[in-house]
Amino acid sequence: MPLLKLGIPKGSLEEATIELFAQAGWNITAHARNYYPDIDDPDIRCALIRAQEMAPYVERGALDLGLTGLDWILESQAEVEPICTLTYSKASNRPSRWVLVVPQDSPIQRVEDLAGKKIATELVGFTKRYLAERGIEAVVEFSWGATEAKVVEGLVDAVVEITETGSTIRAHGLRIVEDLLITETRLIANPQAMQDPARRAKIEQIALMLQAALRARHKVALKCNVPAECLDAVVGLLPSLHAPTVSHLYDRQWLALETIVDAASVRDLVPKLSAAGAQGILEYRLNKMV
Amino acid sequence: MPLLKLGIPKGSLEEATIELFAQAGWNITAHARNYYPDIDDPDIRCALIRAQEMAPYVERGALDLGLTGLDWILESQAEVEPICTLTYSKASNRPSRWVLVVPQDSPIQRVEDLAGKKIATELVGFTKRYLAERGIEAVVEFSWGATEAKVVEGLVDAVVEITETGSTIRAHGLRIVEDLLITETRLIANPQAMQDPARRAKIEQIALMLQAALRARHKVALKCNVPAECLDAVVGLLPSLHAPTVSHLYDRQWLALETIVDAASVRDLVPKLSAAGAQGILEYRLNKMV
Amino acid sequence: MPLLKLGIPKGSLEEATIELFAQAGWNITAHARNYYPDIDDPDIRCALIRAQEMAPYVERGALDLGLTGLDWILESQAEVEPICTLTYSKASNRPSRWVLVVPQDSPIQRVEDLAGKKIATELVGFTKRYLAERGIEAVVEFSWGATEAKVVEGLVDAVVEITETGSTIRAHGLRIVEDLLITETRLIANPQAMQDPARRAKIEQIALMLQAALRARHKVALKCNVPAECLDAVVGLLPSLHAPTVSHLYDRQWLALETIVDAASVRDLVPKLSAAGAQGILEYRLNKMV
Amino acid sequence: MPLLKLGIPKGSLEEATIELFAQAGWNITAHARNYYPDIDDPDIRCALIRAQEMAPYVERGALDLGLTGLDWILESQAEVEPICTLTYSKASNRPSRWVLVVPQDSPIQRVEDLAGKKIATELVGFTKRYLAERGIEAVVEFSWGATEAKVVEGLVDAVVEITETGSTIRAHGLRIVEDLLITETRLIANPQAMQDPARRAKIEQIALMLQAALRARHKVALKCNVPAECLDAVVGLLPSLHAPTVSHLYDRQWLALETIVDAASVRDLVPKLSAAGAQGILEYRLNKMV
Amino acid sequence: MPLLKLGIPKGSLEEATIELFAQAGWNITAHARNYYPDIDDPDIRCALIRAQEMAPYVERGALDLGLTGLDWILESQAEVEPICTLTYSKASNRPSRWVLVVPQDSPIQRVEDLAGKKIATELVGFTKRYLAERGIEAVVEFSWGATEAKVVEGLVDAVVEITETGSTIRAHGLRIVEDLLITETRLIANPQAMQDPARRAKIEQIALMLQAALRARHKVALKCNVPAECLDAVVGLLPSLHAPTVSHLYDRQWLALETIVDAASVRDLVPKLSAAGAQGILEYRLNKMV
Amino acid sequence: MPLLKLGIPKGSLEEATIELFAQAGWNITAHARNYYPDIDDPDIRCALIRAQEMAPYVERGALDLGLTGLDWILESQAEVEPICTLTYSKASNRPSRWVLVVPQDSPIQRVEDLAGKKIATELVGFTKRYLAERGIEAVVEFSWGATEAKVVEGLVDAVVEITETGSTIRAHGLRIVEDLLITETRLIANPQAMQDPARRAKIEQIALMLQAALRARHKVALKCNVPAECLDAVVGLLPSLHAPTVSHLYDRQWLALETIVDAASVRDLVPKLSAAGAQGILEYRLNKMV
Repeated sequence: MPLLKLGIPKGSLEEATIELFAQAGWNITAHARNYYPDIDDPDIRCALIRAQEMAPYVERGALDLGLTGLDWILESQAEVEPICTLTYSKASNRPSRWVLVVPQDSPIQRVEDLAGKKIATELVGFTKRYLAERGIEAVVEFSWGATEAKVVEGLVDAVVEITETGSTIRAHGLRIVEDLLITETRLIANPQAMQDPARRAKIEQIALMLQAALRARHKVALKCNVPAECLDAVVGLLPSLHAPTVSHLYDRQWLALETIVDAASVRDLVPKLSAAGAQGILEYRLNKMV
Repeated sequence: MPLLKLGIPKGSLEEATIELFAQAGWNITAHARNYYPDIDDPDIRCALIRAQEMAPYVERGALDLGLTGLDWILESQAEVEPICTLTYSKASNRPSRWVLVVPQDSPIQRVEDLAGKKIATELVGFTKRYLAERGIEAVVEFSWGATEAKVVEGLVDAVVEITETGSTIRAHGLRIVEDLLITETRLIANPQAMQDPARRAKIEQIALMLQAALRARHKVALKCNVPAECLDAVVGLLPSLHAPTVSHLYDRQWLALETIVDAASVRDLVPKLSAAGAQGILEYRLNKMV
Repeated sequence: MPLLKLGIPKGSLEEATIELFAQAGWNITAHARNYYPDIDDPDIRCALIRAQEMAPYVERGALDLGLTGLDWILESQAEVEPICTLTYSKASNRPSRWVLVVPQDSPIQRVEDLAGKKIATELVGFTKRYLAERGIEAVVEFSWGATEAKVVEGLVDAVVEITETGSTIRAHGLRIVEDLLITETRLIANPQAMQDPARRAKIEQIALMLQAALRARHKVALKCNVPAECLDAVVGLLPSLHAPTVSHLYDRQWLALETIVDAASVRDLVPKLSAAGAQGILEYRLNKMV
Repeated sequence: MPLLKLGIPKGSLEEATIELFAQAGWNITAHARNYYPDIDDPDIRCALIRAQEMAPYVERGALDLGLTGLDWILESQAEVEPICTLTYSKASNRPSRWVLVVPQDSPIQRVEDLAGKKIATELVGFTKRYLAERGIEAVVEFSWGATEAKVVEGLVDAVVEITETGSTIRAHGLRIVEDLLITETRLIANPQAMQDPARRAKIEQIALMLQAALRARHKVALKCNVPAECLDAVVGLLPSLHAPTVSHLYDRQWLALETIVDAASVRDLVPKLSAAGAQGILEYRLNKMV
Repeated sequence: MPLLKLGIPKGSLEEATIELFAQAGWNITAHARNYYPDIDDPDIRCALIRAQEMAPYVERGALDLGLTGLDWILESQAEVEPICTLTYSKASNRPSRWVLVVPQDSPIQRVEDLAGKKIATELVGFTKRYLAERGIEAVVEFSWGATEAKVVEGLVDAVVEITETGSTIRAHGLRIVEDLLITETRLIANPQAMQDPARRAKIEQIALMLQAALRARHKVALKCNVPAECLDAVVGLLPSLHAPTVSHLYDRQWLALETIVDAASVRDLVPKLSAAGAQGILEYRLNKMV
Repeated sequence: MPLLKLGIPKGSLEEATIELFAQAGWNITAHARNYYPDIDDPDIRCALIRAQEMAPYVERGALDLGLTGLDWILESQAEVEPICTLTYSKASNRPSRWVLVVPQDSPIQRVEDLAGKKIATELVGFTKRYLAERGIEAVVEFSWGATEAKVVEGLVDAVVEITETGSTIRAHGLRIVEDLLITETRLIANPQAMQDPARRAKIEQIALMLQAALRARHKVALKCNVPAECLDAVVGLLPSLHAPTVSHLYDRQWLALETIVDAASVRDLVPKLSAAGAQGILEYRLNKMV
């Protein structure tokens, strides 16, 4: 019997989650013929569960640990322990948000204008509470998908839908009234599991390594050779918290520098380093960073 | 403003439905950029709606007419007028049925054994009423899909799932306890629409032509030439309700016969016709049959 | 040496053209390894040629016969003999048209407003002549494709582009100012080839059979059984140029009718025939109709 | 226990065979999860078997009936009863043939030049016997596929390979020395099964219907209307063994003709019929023809 | 004339082999139009050969060097010189094994129970010798593939088939009696080629680099910064054969450590290093390791 | 308003260009719904433009900077400022060249033999000037693609076509007479943009980083541990412009070396390093190298 039951979100996040675990050090293999993905750690047993259903299963202990969105945690109102936020997704770097959408020419301009209207959404519970908290009475219906179509076709007055850039929404002649919720992926644990030292240690190991893998995606190692007289100028350009690693080249006139920087800063940093006298500037990718 | 709002089931039945309408005489074109499929009949406006949501939209008159499964009509308890049953689907000729599924080694042998158990299903309302009618108390939870997996993984005690042959269920080491509902596709109309003579006539035209298209898939025209002296023997083999069409060949010694038979009977009928003296036996496909 | 050199349009029309020839009675097989498609007629040799280049090759006699669009015939100003128009294409039944396109907020409201502007198009020659005939002076540049993008990106003031429904154009925030040319597929021949009796006969055979195949796509055969007393009423509903074929059923009380009607009319005709007493109404598809 | 065990050739012929049976009246469904394809005839049980292995299994009675190539029947030297030849395949209408292939510049000009050479082929037994019958001594090795490559790479002196047009062979700079065997698909039965009246009747039914389906692919029904005075001229053009079906139109001045002709002859026949006075010429496809 | 003829296994291992050579430093490009893959080393000429046929071609010197499975080396009984074992494959990390498979309810419980039975396998020679060595007499038939199906369909009593996990075998209701052979990929050379110093050197270079590439897939470089006082504790956790590389940071209070560890150990090692005082722990991927 | 308008070549180079920018530090995302690819640099706005049209748009300032081939720069005769050559492409490492192609048996042996002939090409302007410079009079026609086919089919006497290896040309039975132009990808800028310090700096930053990314594809970092006594021998084998980085291992008997070498040289260098006493040889990939 494995120590820990881990829920992997089935569907749109599945492939990206399996890739993230692979980078973090666990190989998960999904099979066509059964529902348990294999994982190369005898302490863990995986299950593929839809993001919508993850939090309740973690709450009741059917799973010890799972990854799902903040939206579905709030929708379910499940009592789970948040471990950390994990920002990964293939398509874009913008956060996903649930927005209130109406036709371009709708009279609805603010969420208050929903009073007495009919709204379709997959996120029924959250939407109802959101409106109730603001004292707005409206009919909120569950939508099985293709939610946008319902407002295009006039079947409802508004929909609450998830989007990143809003471009599909605008392309259908619809208008975003306002954001209701910005969501993100969370690692959540069952509170009892966190009381158990063995399971807690395993959960913390997984959290540490997943974060190390994600961090490594946004950082690179930069190395360069610097003549001794330029060292201070070059080091001055570097943002490292700690000092960079400095070694001496076989030719004693030159020093070798090594440091970690944000990947996104390199395109601006390299011309400056070069101007300051650095040579042989090299960038390496990282696989993990703690 | 078109006379009739028609709901086409989005998803697994979508392509087969569009093909059926094409055969019946209406060309429907789904576009990537908007949600209204085009239809070449100015009296009709189409909308793509999930089968699960069709009946409520027909009930409240957002749609006049729609195609959906009996299962989702019952699930929604919508008050709609059944027009006709339409049996079409790509994969198989067996009916779809919702079955109660448990692990191979579960103690649950009858539906009554569900008392006090946890059940996951997409068909929550129907399942709850089904159990209530039999006086069984159990927890029925909504499942967002991959329902079978939940019983494999031990997250619930049983699931209610749709299947045709049951082979996937058995392949996962699960057992079907019993059938809860045999479902089929239905054409349903809004009761008020049926009171309006113009819309009722349009609905009846659509029903007539869809049934004509479906009937033609199971029938073929059979023709043969028969020497005059064999005519009675050959005609005696034919199952036609009405007499077959008989014409004289240019060569007066021979008669030409034409009749409609079940496509499935041809492989047995042809050897008998041939033995009874028929020659030049031809089979033609039909496109519509009223 | 085959009698006739035939040009098949390479690219978007290629597959539909090969299907049309197959229905008409000629099997054309395109090979990956060489450029001559095979055709099962020793009198014909095929070549795959882009629609844009077809007319010049037919004009100079490198091909005797070819299929291409009216747009490219006009663009090339080639002197070729039009044989017939052939309306076929996979996507839609609407004609293709070359339209003048500008940004939504462009001051250009009429073609006359192009004076002094920069226009990109694949149809340079036609566009230049079109403007010259109206006394408009403008710069017309050849575009290698992705023409719409140029006006979106502000690289030119307007583009002349082909479209069916205009929906892609509108989806990019562009506006159609006016139609410049409605185009269609034409069978064209080399004038000298039409002087040669053997080649002329072959060309006429091909034209006859291609038209027979296309006509059969829009017609169906309708049969029904009619009690003798209803015959006149039923026949009165039928639009056949000639009288329908009437035969007697083996049971002499009934007559069998057979006629050809527009496929598009069947959905309206069948309910009327049924109301007039026709039974056993059958629809058959046709493969050729002369 | 079904009456008859039927072997369907797995692999390149599989899809075409299943289509042929469907047209003949039997629906075969191959499943991913098991090896028995379903067939909608309780008298038959299907198995998918490679063409190479079919004849031995039919010989020993593991199967009663099977479809395979003449090449593999000869290779196995199995004693089976040939029922009929069935010519069907997707790609081409040319027969497949096993040919002796050498490099373009090989000194081998005739099969006799193989003496002392090394030959690779999948058809080892047949090739050895072919050479032995001609008194040629050579080494014949089994090749697991990609046979042509072996002679290109100089691993052997010659290969015996199957081809239709020889174009791939020539494209690799190889030369066909001569044809060793022209092959075709055969329906073969176990001799004992043919002694059993019930199985023999079933086998004959299958053979009759498969042949009826294949014949219908090469024939079409042609109908036309003819003024009475042109009837003899039109009938004189028709190749029907029996007289065509003649019926009178409602308008008694015209006759309706119906006959069956080779599909390939229609493109030549239609212009002649039209010239002889026929009107309303229609072509219909057939589904079966006995 | 290249120095060395190298056989690349065609088929399931082909892509993985080409990737391995690319990582090792040789770019191999397979072309659709000919059989010789290009390689960017003038000393080598490649040929694509099926794994089944590799060993005989290496034995007779048609190839100097090749990659194939131990199973096919044993099957062919070719006398070749084993250079090294190379463990790579896409799907899984478990070894492939040839197993004796029977129906679930077969009386066969041990290999000895095969006496007098019929067995189908692709590995005929090996299986015959395996049985002969144990004094078991049985009929072993060559199977052209889909071997499992033969025991499902009752055409034979048992099959000898290759598998990794056995899950497909169990999914078909079959049972593994025992393992006959565990196989793996080997680099093999022609013994005469190994006598030739030039070719031997080339073979050793290839073996060295292929092994360096494979080793790098299972190792990573780990770097961290350590306060001087924690150095011994941190170094004590590291498994390096040799001592880790230690450098001084620009800030002299810290040391930089670098070492190579098993990739699979990192998820356990990192939390310990962190606890022991290491900071800025980084993991890098390797491309080659000697 | 962004500082710089950048043209990305649409079509065959598009994906490789976007990958190169990603490696260099700019993420470009192409959208289906609009024509402006997003780029994560507020100073840049991207446009997708065909390579053929890039230079004229850069010349007239519609774009400040673009990537395109030397061939299309020459074809357009646009006055643009060449910044650097960028050698990247997916398929091969050989340069692309425009060649004069004729049928195998054509009398044309030299470019001079084109006098009075008809030539088809996409590169009309360049070809005309090329011939004019040599005093050759010939008809040069624009070809819309499938240019090779025209000489195969005898529609023209020769074509000027682009190729890498010439293998497709030879496979069609054609002959290359001579090379007319060797082409490569260039980064080109608008001359006015280069006068503007802000845009010039941005252009130089982009050029620097694109070159750093390309250089890193052909180089690797090599590390090894060397006993002190072998250091000179090992260092003597290394081709580094500057001295390698040398550090001391924790175990003071060993030194750690690190250097950058050509990736292509590693397969030869590693055996020599190993022989010279180096151990723990590691190869790392680089992401950028200045």
